[in-house]
Amino acid sequence: MLTLYYAPGTCALATHLALEYSGADYEAKRIDFKAEQQRQPEFLKINPKGRVPALVTDRGVLTENTALLQYIAQSFPAAQLAPLDDPFLMAKVNEFNGYLASTVHVAHAHKGRGYRWVDAADTASQDAMKKKVTQNMADCFTLIEEKYLKGPWVLGERFSTADLYLYTLAGWLEGDGVDVKRFPKVADHMQRMDAQPQVRKVLAAQKAA
Amino acid sequence: MLTLYYAPGTCALATHLALEYSGADYEAKRIDFKAEQQRQPEFLKINPKGRVPALVTDRGVLTENTALLQYIAQSFPAAQLAPLDDPFLMAKVNEFNGYLASTVHVAHAHKGRGYRWVDAADTASQDAMKKKVTQNMADCFTLIEEKYLKGPWVLGERFSTADLYLYTLAGWLEGDGVDVKRFPKVADHMQRMDAQPQVRKVLAAQKAA
Repeated sequence: MLTLYYAPGTCALATHLALEYSGADYEAKRIDFKAEQQRQPEFLKINPKGRVPALVTDRGVLTENTALLQYIAQSFPAAQLAPLDDPFLMAKVNEFNGYLASTVHVAHAHKGRGYRWVDAADTASQDAMKKKVTQNMADCFTLIEEKYLKGPWVLGERFSTADLYLYTLAGWLEGDGVDVKRFPKVADHMQRMDAQPQVRKVLAAQKAA
Repeated sequence: MLTLYYAPGTCALATHLALEYSGADYEAKRIDFKAEQQRQPEFLKINPKGRVPALVTDRGVLTENTALLQYIAQSFPAAQLAPLDDPFLMAKVNEFNGYLASTVHVAHAHKGRGYRWVDAADTASQDAMKKKVTQNMADCFTLIEEKYLKGPWVLGERFSTADLYLYTLAGWLEGDGVDVKRFPKVADHMQRMDAQPQVRKVLAAQKAA
């Protein structure tokens, strides 16, 4: 049994979706970010980073979407969530997921989490960061549209964890002031994902929790 | 034949080291960041992100250290650079490398690359970011020291790509105003890595290029 800690609206959706697609026996536990539950001692014992996703396995806790997505793909190979035996294609998945984690997510985080990188009282600098989020997210998705998303799925005809993670971060575009229609392949990808039963199930479960 | 594009002092060192440890037949090509060669059309054809590392393979170009480290480990399994067949341990490597890429490297980048996240002319906000870099890097390495680096290597007795990447980013601490001696396990790790012949060879090659 795997236990996922998540919060709605966060990047933990990618791992939540991977668990659902994998066929794994798992439980999803919601962390209340408004009550700052992720910073409470009880949760910090599970994940000292104070973040989600965190996945409790029978061998210990794992964090970071890039690691979790491959862990789930590798643990449940029948679901064919990653090209595990093809080092080059696997690297294409990890390259895509790595860009989402270290560039796209970081670009987005400057909207609401600017206090991470300047003094918490320096609201002027945090406001300055917020102002650039729309442009940065648009630039990131221009690159994704033009260079990395082959279509219909990230790798082309083959579905993978990169699709789960892309769907998760593309869902932030509207709130970041970027119209997804500017990116036809990303918009098509989002529609395809919205229609998947696994996606509907996970979003409904998060909403009901 | 693999061709690595790198610049000295950048995170591309991690992938350069992995190539050296792997026994691969590779060539390392230096990109001149001072001349902004990474933003020239010729390089953007290789890596549209305008960054290093970029690895040219016979099937195409790969980027992102997290992807490249696993690609090299998987392509040259005899070098035993990653626990490829153990999904949990592999996830521990990817969790560690993912944290370095999406949190530690990003914390460091706010010293010299603040223009990424605010208007390029807004030097006040960029100065405000610079001021927090020492604290953020110290916080990151406190977490690494206390929770993730088992010692002597990241996974414990087993050497992996996580050691190459940790060594690369720990090398930035001094310039970021953090004394590595505050972190005994990290300091010991750095000394062990400094003594490795592969590390000496790569650093000498980068210096001579």
